[in-house]
Amino acid sequence: MTEHLASWNDGDAKSKILGFVRSVTEPGDSFVPEAERVATFDNDGTLWCEKPMYVQADFVLRRWRAQAQADPAKANEQPWKAVVEGDRAWLAGMLDHVPELINGMTEAYDGITTEAFEAAVREFFDSARHPTLGVPYTKVGFRPMRELVDLLDDNGFTVYICSAGGRDFVRVVSEAMYGVPRDRVIGSGTTLEYRQGDVYRTKGVEQPVDDGPGKPIHIWTRTGHKPLLAGGNADGDIAMLETARFGLLVRHDDAKREFAYDTGAEKALAEAKERGWTVVSMANDFGTVFGL
Amino acid sequence: MTEHLASWNDGDAKSKILGFVRSVTEPGDSFVPEAERVATFDNDGTLWCEKPMYVQADFVLRRWRAQAQADPAKANEQPWKAVVEGDRAWLAGMLDHVPELINGMTEAYDGITTEAFEAAVREFFDSARHPTLGVPYTKVGFRPMRELVDLLDDNGFTVYICSAGGRDFVRVVSEAMYGVPRDRVIGSGTTLEYRQGDVYRTKGVEQPVDDGPGKPIHIWTRTGHKPLLAGGNADGDIAMLETARFGLLVRHDDAKREFAYDTGAEKALAEAKERGWTVVSMANDFGTVFGL
Repeated sequence: MTEHLASWNDGDAKSKILGFVRSVTEPGDSFVPEAERVATFDNDGTLWCEKPMYVQADFVLRRWRAQAQADPAKANEQPWKAVVEGDRAWLAGMLDHVPELINGMTEAYDGITTEAFEAAVREFFDSARHPTLGVPYTKVGFRPMRELVDLLDDNGFTVYICSAGGRDFVRVVSEAMYGVPRDRVIGSGTTLEYRQGDVYRTKGVEQPVDDGPGKPIHIWTRTGHKPLLAGGNADGDIAMLETARFGLLVRHDDAKREFAYDTGAEKALAEAKERGWTVVSMANDFGTVFGL
Repeated sequence: MTEHLASWNDGDAKSKILGFVRSVTEPGDSFVPEAERVATFDNDGTLWCEKPMYVQADFVLRRWRAQAQADPAKANEQPWKAVVEGDRAWLAGMLDHVPELINGMTEAYDGITTEAFEAAVREFFDSARHPTLGVPYTKVGFRPMRELVDLLDDNGFTVYICSAGGRDFVRVVSEAMYGVPRDRVIGSGTTLEYRQGDVYRTKGVEQPVDDGPGKPIHIWTRTGHKPLLAGGNADGDIAMLETARFGLLVRHDDAKREFAYDTGAEKALAEAKERGWTVVSMANDFGTVFGL
């Protein structure tokens, strides 16, 4: 079993994970049948790098730029205005402008089919590069986490991604990056409409959003289970981790190889102590960070 | 491959199904990789008997009766009033009273956890009997359809149930009745709320409902695919069948062994002709109807 986690350093996190997987797969009091071995992982910051900005934010910013070029009137309206003017302050504080942000997000690809959206996402992954790492975004996944997914998969778990970000965005690369097929990607989405054989994106946001308390709800509707094991990295993952038997929290403390920040994870780190979640230090527990 | 459909009579429907499965699984122009072999089946009237009333309607009527007994004030309010007074006319015309119906449906199990709801459903299936067939509802599934699910399963398809009825209702018996695990049941549901480790049912209806144009939307959000093969029996299945490469429509024309009715399937039967969907005659194509 150990050979699965080749990129993990020996230590508390690795041995707790291996111990848990053994305990639910080997005969005994804590054995869990395969059908109930459900694992769920957040994506941004847990399976792939979320700094200096969310991968999907880069995708949407490029689209806003293209939209403003095609329709200059848009350049007077946020968030297109900020992109055209290179207004970093506005963009950095985007979460203080939620209505404009949501409007921009849903309008970016409004009215096209799910297939056309997928083609746009694929084109992004084929061409874009991570701004500081300089590699395609398909290379910014964490190798130790991919190994963990494989370990679980080989031990009868069914692994789902449960992302606050876009379900239809992550689906495009989930199989190639993590070995998680598209039907096992849970995430947020726009509202959809059916017309004459096709499904079209529309300008609303599917409720609830797959973040915070929305995560256990999405996981229930999609799997009919609570997770046996759940992994996250931020406060938005707390509810999901609360419902899991084994909680794992990735801590970004490796300024040298990735990014160091606890911002947005303060409550999760505090709750990890209370609830005995396994905190994974990227600096100490990851032998290698990238390299999918 | 033929041995799979042992309860099907030889004929057009059986040979079209076998021909299609062969065409997508054997090397050649119409070969489809396993990851894209998605099949979706409606449940009521397609996989199990929906007459003289929906199975879930019986479940809810029993609950309304119990609620009115526990709280006599409820007996003044529809739909509880109709149940207490045995008002068959009101109940038969229930679909003309949608607000009261939805209110009654969502209030029946409002505020309890998904686990508590599941226990109530299980208790129903353990105790209730079909009103005319006299057997537990777990015995009213169509054996030829179960054989079709098995055929697809053995040929690399991933089979989902896509029910207009309650996802969390059907999930409880889907594995035992059809060999379809709970995470592959797509259906309608109440809104949900997360509180301190548990998911609670609340008094709204998840949008869109998984019927008519809602079906392809649910199928997309859950699977990331259009179905390669879809099976239904009613007008509410038209949109789902329109998105599938192979459409199958179960026709209820067997008054002797099941029920004979085209009501609610008139448009679907007309569209079947235009689009070349395979119409399955229960009278002629099913050698056996029940017997799971």
